[in-house]
Amino acid sequence: MAAEPPYLELLKAVDSFPHIDISKTPYNEDERSSFYQLLLPNDPRSHGYIHPSVIQKLEWTASFQVKHTVPRTVQLLDDSDGKDTAAACSRAFYEVLEKAVNSKTYPFLKTMQWENYRIVGARYPKVQILRSAARLFGICSRGAHMTAYVRTNDGMKIWVGRRAAHLFTFPGKLDTTVAGGVRAEESPFECIVHEAAEEASIPVEFVRANAKACGAITYVAKSSDAYGDGSNLMTPVILYNYDIELPETIVPRPQDDEVEDFYLWDLEQIKKAMINREFKTNCAAVMIDFFVRHGIITEENEKDYLEILTRLHRKLPVATSAFES
Amino acid sequence: MAAEPPYLELLKAVDSFPHIDISKTPYNEDERSSFYQLLLPNDPRSHGYIHPSVIQKLEWTASFQVKHTVPRTVQLLDDSDGKDTAAACSRAFYEVLEKAVNSKTYPFLKTMQWENYRIVGARYPKVQILRSAARLFGICSRGAHMTAYVRTNDGMKIWVGRRAAHLFTFPGKLDTTVAGGVRAEESPFECIVHEAAEEASIPVEFVRANAKACGAITYVAKSSDAYGDGSNLMTPVILYNYDIELPETIVPRPQDDEVEDFYLWDLEQIKKAMINREFKTNCAAVMIDFFVRHGIITEENEKDYLEILTRLHRKLPVATSAFES
Repeated sequence: MAAEPPYLELLKAVDSFPHIDISKTPYNEDERSSFYQLLLPNDPRSHGYIHPSVIQKLEWTASFQVKHTVPRTVQLLDDSDGKDTAAACSRAFYEVLEKAVNSKTYPFLKTMQWENYRIVGARYPKVQILRSAARLFGICSRGAHMTAYVRTNDGMKIWVGRRAAHLFTFPGKLDTTVAGGVRAEESPFECIVHEAAEEASIPVEFVRANAKACGAITYVAKSSDAYGDGSNLMTPVILYNYDIELPETIVPRPQDDEVEDFYLWDLEQIKKAMINREFKTNCAAVMIDFFVRHGIITEENEKDYLEILTRLHRKLPVATSAFES
Repeated sequence: MAAEPPYLELLKAVDSFPHIDISKTPYNEDERSSFYQLLLPNDPRSHGYIHPSVIQKLEWTASFQVKHTVPRTVQLLDDSDGKDTAAACSRAFYEVLEKAVNSKTYPFLKTMQWENYRIVGARYPKVQILRSAARLFGICSRGAHMTAYVRTNDGMKIWVGRRAAHLFTFPGKLDTTVAGGVRAEESPFECIVHEAAEEASIPVEFVRANAKACGAITYVAKSSDAYGDGSNLMTPVILYNYDIELPETIVPRPQDDEVEDFYLWDLEQIKKAMINREFKTNCAAVMIDFFVRHGIITEENEKDYLEILTRLHRKLPVATSAFES
């Protein structure tokens, strides 16, 4: 039997932003390093925290009111005078980001032609922002992950994907069976349904009937060097988790060019790969949540059980619930 | 179809202690109301927070060093000089509590002849304290809950218990199928195994083979008036959750005098009972966690999904992980 993976250490690599109260930082810490709250129109709650380096690098338009004294804020204004606030906000983000793309301010901002994210918990849920730019504003990223497993005579086995070698992020690393960013216009469930078909050739109707929502994990990442921006941006992340039991007759197969291969592994093989840090970091966290929900990690066999559980559900520093006036 | 229960409101009734940083309170708030950290020997981490009213009411022995200036602390000393620290600590708690029982200081402290809790995350895991007294010190309470469900042709049904009318706490309220406090000398799993037999007549061997650990919920309760102590004590709580699928041939039946009856209810019946506040408050939280894990509450149907998820896994203000020197 393989040794047990260092689960808490694996989580710390994902939930890498310090456990400080970022909303209080301006009052307690060096003012120069304090983040700016992102405020949307008619809503006092913060929807993001912007690093001072980003404040300096972006060319802010008149739609944004930037206040440099504490509490530092970036207030998005409603240019539509209440006629279509969501569209006005989306347009304001678009204009600032278009300038950044054109001036090549950030290497990871290559084009405006890409998926958009919605802003979680926003009073105007139709506000959209370029997916790759969400982290610049400390806006919450949302992904959906589905773990496919098979009950065999030799116990539970799990389908693990291997990321293609040409990918920009985490090339060649192991991945959840199916995963994707949740686009602004879709729900997490619809995301999983189409990603399962596109990435793993699992029939849409089978997924629709059998994928089971089973919670979400939340963490706050420090911007990784993989993105080349250098400074310590803060990215709150929500990953919606789905389980699906596959019969042996349904075999995930790579369909697009993002996945190289799929392996049906038993728990010992997966633990070994976790120990060797072969998983994309946040996919290890998804697997840890799966292990907790399926009685593989327990209070009895894991000394940091409670710490792992609360860390998998970190309270995010941005609004995540519906707005109540 | 019944309306959806106000899940977040139900959670707030359980996780009722304010979301403040209690470790910081002495520095920011009215000093008179600030709690005292409970410190065990050779460990700088807080294992509890003691309300000032408790500091005044208990007769502290020489084993406890009480410091009234901020940061306020109650330091437990090792009377054994390192020979048997756990036994020395347990004895120190026992002596203080025995005086309180004899002088009838707290109505809920009736006898020293009762179950003991261990102190979660303690460097000396064998330290024990009277279960009913843990809340006086803000020490973490640990319970184990098991939800039994049946897959029927009409969908999932869940076994719900009705608490006996004579119980001191929450008489007549609905309860998880099986639940109990985790005694110092047992694991959460062993707790569930014997409680399932004692409370619900579910065969021990069936539980041992089929109960599945699936995480834990954590919350911080404000001491309820049900206990008659009046002041706002803080009680961190961990409830370890287990699921078990029962065949229709195994029917839970009351065995001891704590449960009046069991009902096999469909989801609509359970939701209706939640709306009517018929569940013991923390059992509603366990049910909500079950609903999340089983895809009954989802991002798509619950506007406060994220808030509910993080609130079900509140970071506790006391040490919960193994001690690392």
